[in-house]
Amino acid sequence: MGRVFSRVDHIGVAVEDLDAALELYERDYEMTLVHREVIEAQGVEAVLLDVGENHVELLAPLGPDTPVGKYLAKRGPGMHHVAYQVSDIDATLAALRDAGLRLIDEHPRDGIRDSRVAFLHPATAGGVLTEIVQPAKGH
Amino acid sequence: MGRVFSRVDHIGVAVEDLDAALELYERDYEMTLVHREVIEAQGVEAVLLDVGENHVELLAPLGPDTPVGKYLAKRGPGMHHVAYQVSDIDATLAALRDAGLRLIDEHPRDGIRDSRVAFLHPATAGGVLTEIVQPAKGH
Repeated sequence: MGRVFSRVDHIGVAVEDLDAALELYERDYEMTLVHREVIEAQGVEAVLLDVGENHVELLAPLGPDTPVGKYLAKRGPGMHHVAYQVSDIDATLAALRDAGLRLIDEHPRDGIRDSRVAFLHPATAGGVLTEIVQPAKGH
Repeated sequence: MGRVFSRVDHIGVAVEDLDAALELYERDYEMTLVHREVIEAQGVEAVLLDVGENHVELLAPLGPDTPVGKYLAKRGPGMHHVAYQVSDIDATLAALRDAGLRLIDEHPRDGIRDSRVAFLHPATAGGVLTEIVQPAKGH
């Protein structure tokens, strides 16, 4: 039983400009910014904002040829993915693979704020780019 | 201070067929179905699944000329909106209007499972169709 999702970890939102987006999320929505990080491997600068025990992750592309840059060019700013929190990402990923789901990441990799993450392909996830996240201890 | 979002209430996912989608969410993701309802005013049949204290709301259109029907025709199945939970929807909606956000619903209306809901327009919400939800007592 490593498959159970304990909560929505975050929704990922693609934005053109982080600081402009933060005006909406910090000033208007009164969310608290808790983390900011350049993730070179994913081609993004990202921030995390708290919403209770959940988060919003804002993603700004480091360039037009990154996945988020291409997403923005095609669809414009908006919801990019949903991430569910798990306590044992290795077991969960194995269970989802065994259930026949198509994985983008065959093995967990490093994510934001020292988490371990893996993405499921939208093709077998109802059209939703879906991430599973095992947070670092303390988060 | 009626504006604070206490958590992600749900992510709304547009689907072509509820029962087919439930195979993914119930069988593969092992989420628990907690509610099913036809919401004629919104032109959808919807279900709620628990993910910890958050939910996934699956939305199937009652016909092609409904908002979700048109969304599916244009973009296909996938993430449709995000909903944040609030404790005082009237105060929150007023504060967001005063902040200059464009509202789809000037006043809260009845939502799923006896909640009160209002939608913010994506144009001033970072491209994200955003809902605020005050759940019925007991949910």
